[in-house]
Amino acid sequence: MHKGCAITVGDLGEFGAIQRISGRLPQGAAVLLGPGDDAAVLRAPDGRVVVSTDLLIEGRHFRRDWSSGYDIGSKAAAQNLADIVAMGADPTALVVGLGLPGDVDTGWLDALTDGFRDECDLVGASVAGGDIARSDVVVLGVTALGDLGGRSPVRRGGAAPGQTVAVAGRLGHAAAGLALLQAGRGAVDGLDELVGAHRRPRPPYACGPEAARLGATAMLDVSDGLVQDLGHIADASGVGIVVDPAALPIPPLLARAAGLLGADPVEWALTGGEDHALAAVFPAGVSLPPEWTVIGDVVAGEGVRVRGRTLKEGGWDHFRD
Amino acid sequence: MHKGCAITVGDLGEFGAIQRISGRLPQGAAVLLGPGDDAAVLRAPDGRVVVSTDLLIEGRHFRRDWSSGYDIGSKAAAQNLADIVAMGADPTALVVGLGLPGDVDTGWLDALTDGFRDECDLVGASVAGGDIARSDVVVLGVTALGDLGGRSPVRRGGAAPGQTVAVAGRLGHAAAGLALLQAGRGAVDGLDELVGAHRRPRPPYACGPEAARLGATAMLDVSDGLVQDLGHIADASGVGIVVDPAALPIPPLLARAAGLLGADPVEWALTGGEDHALAAVFPAGVSLPPEWTVIGDVVAGEGVRVRGRTLKEGGWDHFRD
Repeated sequence: MHKGCAITVGDLGEFGAIQRISGRLPQGAAVLLGPGDDAAVLRAPDGRVVVSTDLLIEGRHFRRDWSSGYDIGSKAAAQNLADIVAMGADPTALVVGLGLPGDVDTGWLDALTDGFRDECDLVGASVAGGDIARSDVVVLGVTALGDLGGRSPVRRGGAAPGQTVAVAGRLGHAAAGLALLQAGRGAVDGLDELVGAHRRPRPPYACGPEAARLGATAMLDVSDGLVQDLGHIADASGVGIVVDPAALPIPPLLARAAGLLGADPVEWALTGGEDHALAAVFPAGVSLPPEWTVIGDVVAGEGVRVRGRTLKEGGWDHFRD
Repeated sequence: MHKGCAITVGDLGEFGAIQRISGRLPQGAAVLLGPGDDAAVLRAPDGRVVVSTDLLIEGRHFRRDWSSGYDIGSKAAAQNLADIVAMGADPTALVVGLGLPGDVDTGWLDALTDGFRDECDLVGASVAGGDIARSDVVVLGVTALGDLGGRSPVRRGGAAPGQTVAVAGRLGHAAAGLALLQAGRGAVDGLDELVGAHRRPRPPYACGPEAARLGATAMLDVSDGLVQDLGHIADASGVGIVVDPAALPIPPLLARAAGLLGADPVEWALTGGEDHALAAVFPAGVSLPPEWTVIGDVVAGEGVRVRGRTLKEGGWDHFRD
């Protein structure tokens, strides 16, 4: 379609845009009352509800020239759903506050909506409500809700010396993808999976409730980088954590991209954020399913130490070694 | 304190700001796990949870030169809590995504936090979690949750001909306050209550669950204006609504402000938004507590008609008369 024909959000108006969005959002079994009233009503069979919110702002958290509307919606959904599973809960729904410039075209809005929808669909959740407002840049206020199914929430503060640290999901992939884009090497053959990882994380959703059932004593999703996020568990639990870099899952793809850019793939895995892997602490001797990789141990003390490495400058300095 | 001494949000950093905010937020009985983990955990004793979200953007929904941080926090909380009570539910908690320019000073942030806290406290709710991000303008992504206490949610679509329309709370006050500010008459003696109503609504929180117990067949909070919002009930219910303008609650204060500005107080009451009164439909003959004022009737047909008035241009034209 040539540019003069594009219909914008401004043309649709608030109610038109809401109607268009709602029409693309099927409602799952947890939704008793979906969009269109003052509030949504969701099932909370456990008698408790888990809730997490994130605010994402264009230019800071995403760029419309580097990611499609579909990718931005998927990623915004994923990072919030990951927070829910990181408590050991099953996500039930999102509600989304959407700030949009008037000149955003409806095709982009549809793609954004579909990204939210498809990512929710991976966990059986749905977008149950929202709000729309004019904004100079795209703003996403995303809130995720979940149900614990009778399990205790897995917090950050339950790790104890002698326990085992493990991860599920990808580490360093989004960082590698971003580095490839920044170096103008995003189109290098075979490395598009890493660029895709930057645009759209793949959190290991099922592993969160699974970890809770396996008796995880602490868990979070890796959003800022493994070492930094393990630091939150160490701080909250009053323990130290030792990571074995040789144990980190580094697939050949990551090693190849690092070679191409003269980077260190282990560094990416230790510090790269936005993959939304799950990092959890388990009692010693627990038998873990294959999705989990043991990467270290909980020790007496404080902070996060990486065996055989001294920590780099930058965001690292508040993690003592 | 002179300006050179002010500490800004940029000085605090993300974690410092979160710590400062969390320290000012006591947690109510509904909060099983508050700020500091991947997600909060709330009681949902009913087995269902009511959830609503709003996105508020500086320059569109509020101005920092017209409203204090405290007022902005109060108002943002109020309009979301009102959505929860408008379903007949009791609010339990808010989660807040907060976008802040780096040069916002911590005194303003404290005031904003206190506004959220105090408004929540009116209904026994608390701010149980949130997120913070850098932003060029202040952005508030506010999500409210509530519990139905065994009641059915009061939707918009249950009104039937022969039933009675009533309101609880203030109408036209925020519109009058805004008009006074815009006319530079905000400081006129005795009218500061109206300016206060623009800065900070007073939704009649207890009336929402009360209406549900009284058998209300439809309800919403008046955020965009009485006629426009009753139009949503008329549309969703497939009925018409006739409003008697002589029945509208117009206190002497509102009449005095209208006289001063050459405005029509009934017009303010019919079209003014942001007071977050509750408008509800009740079965004919129901005996209403004194907080409620009967203002009209549900009839067969469609749209909203105001007895003895023809509707004005502007936002009115999609409500047929």
